[in-house]
Parts: sequence; structure tokens; C-alpha cells
Amino acid sequence: MEKKKVVIALGGNALGKDIEEQKEAVAHTAKVIVDMAQQGMDIIVTHGNGPQVGMIQDAMDNLIVMHENYKQVPLPTSVAMSQGYIGIDLQNAIKYELYSRNIDGKVSTILSQVEVDPADPAFQNPTKPIGRFMTKEEAEENEANGITCMEDAGRGYRIVVASPMPKRIRELETIRTLLKAGHIVITCGGGGIPVVNENGKLVGCNAVIDKDNVSSLLAAELDADDLIILTAVEKVAINFGKENQEWLSDLSVEQAKQYIAEEQFAKGSMLPKVEAAVRFAQSKPGRNALITLLDKAADAIAGKTGTVIHL
Amino acid sequence: MEKKKVVIALGGNALGKDIEEQKEAVAHTAKVIVDMAQQGMDIIVTHGNGPQVGMIQDAMDNLIVMHENYKQVPLPTSVAMSQGYIGIDLQNAIKYELYSRNIDGKVSTILSQVEVDPADPAFQNPTKPIGRFMTKEEAEENEANGITCMEDAGRGYRIVVASPMPKRIRELETIRTLLKAGHIVITCGGGGIPVVNENGKLVGCNAVIDKDNVSSLLAAELDADDLIILTAVEKVAINFGKENQEWLSDLSVEQAKQYIAEEQFAKGSMLPKVEAAVRFAQSKPGRNALITLLDKAADAIAGKTGTVIHL
Repeated sequence: MEKKKVVIALGGNALGKDIEEQKEAVAHTAKVIVDMAQQGMDIIVTHGNGPQVGMIQDAMDNLIVMHENYKQVPLPTSVAMSQGYIGIDLQNAIKYELYSRNIDGKVSTILSQVEVDPADPAFQNPTKPIGRFMTKEEAEENEANGITCMEDAGRGYRIVVASPMPKRIRELETIRTLLKAGHIVITCGGGGIPVVNENGKLVGCNAVIDKDNVSSLLAAELDADDLIILTAVEKVAINFGKENQEWLSDLSVEQAKQYIAEEQFAKGSMLPKVEAAVRFAQSKPGRNALITLLDKAADAIAGKTGTVIHL
Repeated sequence: MEKKKVVIALGGNALGKDIEEQKEAVAHTAKVIVDMAQQGMDIIVTHGNGPQVGMIQDAMDNLIVMHENYKQVPLPTSVAMSQGYIGIDLQNAIKYELYSRNIDGKVSTILSQVEVDPADPAFQNPTKPIGRFMTKEEAEENEANGITCMEDAGRGYRIVVASPMPKRIRELETIRTLLKAGHIVITCGGGGIPVVNENGKLVGCNAVIDKDNVSSLLAAELDADDLIILTAVEKVAINFGKENQEWLSDLSVEQAKQYIAEEQFAKGSMLPKVEAAVRFAQSKPGRNALITLLDKAADAIAGKTGTVIHL
């Protein structure tokens, strides 16, 4: 029997919020991943980078204020930096977990760039908050310089950038080569480094690609069996927070689309996850998209919990 | 005939000093690399990260001053970040140069960690300056906190860290797999992320590994034919800057060691390059270590210029 191929999209809690938390968090995350690897699956790991890229952008923004001889670091450069250090931490944690179990496993990190369409309507309507919270005055100063800011859930103002759809993962061949060689591959961190293809030249652009969307594309391109989107709840619910709240276990693509139309899922929270899951599930019969907690990943693959979406 | 395998260790000018210069510089560097690839060589590219990791550390140091909720970013984390964004810029430039010449070539970047010995005497004698120039007062404040600083060539004070010898490149198998699959591989950026192996757990350490030393180890481990160390001069000289200055074209390991003993090469400049070259050249008969300019790399491989060191 061919090995099952699984793309795991880690949620924010799989990494923690800062450098120190990350070292702890990845050690736990690694156990979940190695459990799955021990069940004989080929595994591809993707992850977010919200707090990490926020920290880097904050640092770089301060730098140009404090030292005149430095230049603004563009967002895609910060994403590349975040992929570098998150990838290494995850890779080491997984390697160490394998080592602790006497398994001589291979793990690698592939920095990845993801092409977006410069005509994507998302560029006209930036919605993705990045970086630190600002005062209203700071936000107004940014707006005056053409940088879009938005009030974020009563917590202050933040810069917002476009979140265009991923069109093409540039490093697919490298990922395939390493998977074939038996590696657990960590890739598409932070949704990938957003690039526009200008006549063959990849040029970074000011955007953040949703990591669940990229994971969905990656899973389809690699012909994965399962896509697991990890989040803060064990299952997806309809009528969330209401008296008639209902946890969903098994959901057809058709049904999921109907719930989306009914606006059952919160924008910027569960909606993009369900949409990404649907895109993978509908790409080919037999493909399952699961949404669950990190600690329930293995159970979800075994059909014991989580929400599964399929054709 | 088997393809020639070449490790190219790029010098500082191959990357430029800041984000903008880097985009320009890598475009030129890519031409040199693709010229060599077109001659039918397998190519592994290594690079420094001095100004880049300096910028990141400066940014991170400012961050913890300006925002209390951030924590100190350790040096190895900054090295990982620098490998990420330099690697992607180099990778894209090489890819684009291949594309411009209608070659469908593969290029990948492998983040790499390099084990050092915690008992390496270098840890007792930090000599490698990193980050920005400081005033004497700032340096004294750092020294009071146990951070070693040194006056740097009349330009101000800088933090210095240990530069231990590289013992083991952790990602060798990944690099080999990609080389075998026909990739130009970019790796060991900035000398590699320095780590200590604590019973199987890789823990970052406060050090900078010399990138020419790592390149020498990498070339030997990959059984490369040539190691090219690129620098600011076309050839190595003895009696440098004196009346009887003599450019060297062909040098035996024996002769090179004698010149080293005579202190013909400047510490922190040509000496570590010659030493790294010697280590590779003496590791096996037939291995050539070349020192030359970026633009003379192809000519040096053809035996037309540069300084070659061999057994």
C-alpha cells in the first residue's frame, strides 16, 4: 500500500508568540508530527508567521528611524527571514524528537515563494493586519504616507496589507525531490514569500498570503491524501456561540458551501479555514480536508474527531 | 567524463552591503555562476552575511530597547534570518539568469547548521566583530554586562564573538540529495548557523563561523574537485604592499604552509582564506583550492589566473 501523504498546516499555538515560547512550543508540535510519521505517513508541514513577521517588521521599522544609513526592509524580505528561523526551530525539534525515539529520519526546510496575480482584487482592498498595534495618531501619519491602516478589534490600529490568492508555489520541484527522498518537509511558512512574476523575474510584493490557502494549493499540487488545518477548536461549528450551536464531524463540500453562503463562519477566523479546506476537498475525489486541534491531529486522520470535509 | 564539482565561496562584494545593493549585486554574481554551470559543472554556492546579520542584530537590539514586550534575539537566530533572505535573493537571481539564457535549471537554498565544539579555544578568545560601531561608553557598558567588545581599526568599538572551527554540517544529506537531482545549491550562508550538539539536541551558540572554513569543510565532505574562495584581489601575494611584492599563481600546500609560518598573510584578511584553502587542498590529492576575484572565477578554474593551492 502506498504511504498516505499529509499536509499539516500548523496554527499559531504550534509556534508560540515569541523566540522563547517558540522553542518550547515546537518541541510539543514535533511530538504530534513524529507520531504521525511513525504511523507511516509522508508529511509536509506548513506554518504561520504572524507574531514572528510582526516582530521582524517592527524591528526593521525602528532601525530606519534610529540609524539613517539603513533602508526600509520590504515585507517579503521579512517573510523570508521568518521562514528561516521558524523553519530551523521546527526542523531541529522534529529531528530531536525522531532522535529521541531512535529513528534516523530526515527533515528539511524549504524556503518558498508563492506567485500571486498583481491584478488580484485583494490589492485594492487590503485586509490583513501586520505588525504592532499603533495609536490613532501613528495610524493617521501612516495613512498620510499612503500606508493603509485599520482599527483592529478595539486593540488599537495596525497596518493592513493585501491577502491575494496563491497561484503557484515556486519550489514545488524541490519539495517533491525531498519528499521522494524520505524527508519530512517544512515549507510555505507564513503563506510563502509573496512574489509577482514579471516576465520570468520574481519580484517580492507587499502582501501576506493566507497560510491555509497556500497549504490547500500545496496539498493539491503534491497530490496529498489529507490536508489538516490546525486551529484553536476541535471541530467546526454552525450557529457558533448560540443556543443551537452544533459541532460538525463530517461535511460534504456541497454542505460546507451552503454554510459559507449562510455566513455561518466568522470572517478572518473560521471562514478562510473552511474555504481553504473546501478548495482542497473539491479538487479531486478521495481528498479529505480536516480541521481540528494540534493534539487531535492523529485522531482526526483516524476519523475519530475533528471536522472532515470531502467531495 | 564525470561532471566537475565546484564549491564557490562568495565574498562580500558578491552581495553588496544593504537590501537594495544586494538585489543589484546578486544579478551580477548570478551571471558568473551560470557561466560556470553552462560549462557543465555541479555548483554549490556559499556566502558571507557580515553586513546582513549586522543589520538584523542592530534591528533586534533596538527592538528590545523600544518595546519592553520583546525579548533578545540570539545571534544564531539572526544568522538563520540572514540565510533566509540572502538565499532567496541569490536563488532568484540565478534562476532568472538561467531563464534569460533559456535554461530550465534548478536552484535551491538549504538553511544550514554547523556544529562546533563547545570546548573550542576560540570561545575563550572572541575575535570576530559583529554589528554596528559603538562609542567607547557603549562598549564599556556592554563589557560591564559580560559582552566582549573591541576597538576595530580606528572606526569605533564593536561586539566581538568567538569564531570556532566548523566540525559538522548538519544538512549534508539534504544538500547531496539536491545536487544529485541537478540543483545548484546555495547553502552554509554566513558560515552556517552555529550550533552545539547537546546529546542530540542542536542548541544555537553565540558565535560566527568563518564562511571560508565552512566552505572548505563542505567541499571536502561533498568530494568537490575545486573550492573557489572569492575575494577582493585576483591573486594572493607575498611581501604584500612592499617593493618585492610577488603575486602567486601556483602554490603547493607545503609552500603555502611555509608562507603562513612566515606571517606573509594578514590576520582577519588573507590568512584565514589561505588556511581554509590549504585545509581543502591537503584533504585529498587532486583537490584544488583557488583564490581569486568573482569576475575571474571561470578563468581561474581554467587555470588562467588566480592562485591555486594543491597537494
